[in-house]
Amino acid sequence: MAQRIPARVGDDLAAVETPALVLDLDAFERNLDRMAAATTGTRLRPHAKAHKCPDVVWLQLSRGAVGVCCQKTDEAAAFVAAGIPDVLVTNEVVAPAKIARLCALARDATIGVLVDEPANVIALSDAASGAGVTLDVYVEINVGADRCGVPPGEPALALAQRIATAAGLRLRGLHAYHGGAQHLRTPDERRAAIARAAALAAETRDVIENAGLVCSIVTGAGTGTWRHERDSGVWNELQPGSYPFMDADYGRNALADDDIVFEQSLFVLAGVMSTAVEGRAIVDAGLKAFSFDSGLPQVHGRTDIAYVKASDEHGVLELARGHAPIARNDLVRLVPGHCDPTFNLYDWIVGLRGDRVETVWSIAARGALG
Amino acid sequence: MAQRIPARVGDDLAAVETPALVLDLDAFERNLDRMAAATTGTRLRPHAKAHKCPDVVWLQLSRGAVGVCCQKTDEAAAFVAAGIPDVLVTNEVVAPAKIARLCALARDATIGVLVDEPANVIALSDAASGAGVTLDVYVEINVGADRCGVPPGEPALALAQRIATAAGLRLRGLHAYHGGAQHLRTPDERRAAIARAAALAAETRDVIENAGLVCSIVTGAGTGTWRHERDSGVWNELQPGSYPFMDADYGRNALADDDIVFEQSLFVLAGVMSTAVEGRAIVDAGLKAFSFDSGLPQVHGRTDIAYVKASDEHGVLELARGHAPIARNDLVRLVPGHCDPTFNLYDWIVGLRGDRVETVWSIAARGALG
Repeated sequence: MAQRIPARVGDDLAAVETPALVLDLDAFERNLDRMAAATTGTRLRPHAKAHKCPDVVWLQLSRGAVGVCCQKTDEAAAFVAAGIPDVLVTNEVVAPAKIARLCALARDATIGVLVDEPANVIALSDAASGAGVTLDVYVEINVGADRCGVPPGEPALALAQRIATAAGLRLRGLHAYHGGAQHLRTPDERRAAIARAAALAAETRDVIENAGLVCSIVTGAGTGTWRHERDSGVWNELQPGSYPFMDADYGRNALADDDIVFEQSLFVLAGVMSTAVEGRAIVDAGLKAFSFDSGLPQVHGRTDIAYVKASDEHGVLELARGHAPIARNDLVRLVPGHCDPTFNLYDWIVGLRGDRVETVWSIAARGALG
Repeated sequence: MAQRIPARVGDDLAAVETPALVLDLDAFERNLDRMAAATTGTRLRPHAKAHKCPDVVWLQLSRGAVGVCCQKTDEAAAFVAAGIPDVLVTNEVVAPAKIARLCALARDATIGVLVDEPANVIALSDAASGAGVTLDVYVEINVGADRCGVPPGEPALALAQRIATAAGLRLRGLHAYHGGAQHLRTPDERRAAIARAAALAAETRDVIENAGLVCSIVTGAGTGTWRHERDSGVWNELQPGSYPFMDADYGRNALADDDIVFEQSLFVLAGVMSTAVEGRAIVDAGLKAFSFDSGLPQVHGRTDIAYVKASDEHGVLELARGHAPIARNDLVRLVPGHCDPTFNLYDWIVGLRGDRVETVWSIAARGALG
């Protein structure tokens, strides 16, 4: 059952029911424009695992994005159902039922997927050729995340050779994503991590091409490091996901002087529900309204109140000495610690133009775990 | 949009699509029976914020529970829509639209709510009498959580007097819940915290009754402390929520020799999706498949693998020296760190009898934030 829609188009901010996920459309559009302008020389395939919302994807495609990434077969299904024509699942798909579902999607859209073992190549090939479709396949190489992916170099070549000769599969290139590098706090650390990843990806691409195979695409990158992949001469497709929205954890990354700044556009709008305890105000947004994996939410635009503690359905605001008056039903904008899993808690994004509700979008792939 | 149902009744465990929230029905039913047997002399009103599932509530009511608790108006709406006849919202409801919705529910069920300020009494009274319904109202007192609630004693009496004379409201008693006490790690700490809360609740009850008002119910308690409230001579209604399921965080509470033991019945069933990186296996359940506010999930029944790290859609299992063989599509049972916000990530509970799917229940109030 989806949640009730928390606002109607044309509502004033004060009429939005809390807690609600709200988007400052002006800041959001500036973020989209900045990334589009900065990536004109390369392929931008933004990651939709962040927001899970087809309406956001259409706005990215209209600014030149070549397609979209997601992480789960069920996410891909939601985007294909919404008409998105080109979806790359930046993940291994290994369960037989999921492989079958992925192949069914390839009847209606260009579908890409990653592999990191030979048996999976056979399973994908059998399913795709059985279904009469072609899957775009990328070899995932481990460039530092130590999560999925074969080692760079020869092991990747061996896999690429299997893909290149497998019925129903089209070898597209390499997937080289360094997740841990996104949140390294200094520009130098991020640059260095991606330089190491670039050397591994370049070596692997060369090994594959020297063997006579075509490695058209090297894809990867995130909101923390994309400029380094863009400028590397190795990647030719970029996958940042959080840049339209941002979050408190990305806010803790120090930026270089020439880094492009993305604005915080995403907030949880919370309402004050109790001021009975001295020195505190309690809001209606707690552990089920934010993901806390990257710390507490931050109060936006206020220094006199701080979100200091959460329980399942309550957030505790601590009031500093001399704080502005605060009363029940007051609204507070809170910046999520981590935007991706916070989107996953909501069914709707309330788009605000100033203090007016301009649109409400469905988070269509909310909860798409499979 | 709800998630796809991950299993069909009659399926073997191996056919359940991962990640899925699965329930060991034997352990779950033993937990329900143990709590029912231990609370025969008092009113049990289990908290449904934990599981958000009407099917679970019916099983609790069939074992003698007097009704159910929840935390949000939209949760109450989901339970009333499922036919549950008696719902207490253990929270303040202050937004006008939510108050109106709460009153509408009171046409079809007994609806209770908490208050901790005079203006809210007026708002509830106006709305209830306007709608031609009666709301059960409880004064929330602060017994140590420092969240919502008026101070014990005279401030609570002043509020009770307003409720008792307000049209459309029925004063039912006190809400005295000490959330922080549930996870104090030693039995002595928990006992001492509830003893202090009991003294405050008893004093407040006496002040109210000495003023000539009826304070029929003192309600509160959770899975960590319920035996102390039960034995206090103060509380006559208990609200534990997690006991049918349990989680890793409750598992860290040391128990007294005579504490009743509840078994872990709730798991996330995850599937292995990659073994490409030496010493690790990657499962398909990460930050969107568990709430991480109370730490990492634990691998159930295995000491040779440990869940050591999560990203949005991946969980990293570290393989100990001499580990059992592990391969793609292997299934792993993982114990959530915190059950309540983990239920909120799923639309379905897959009920297992042994290794067979016996039932699939809708988490009808999933995402009911308002």
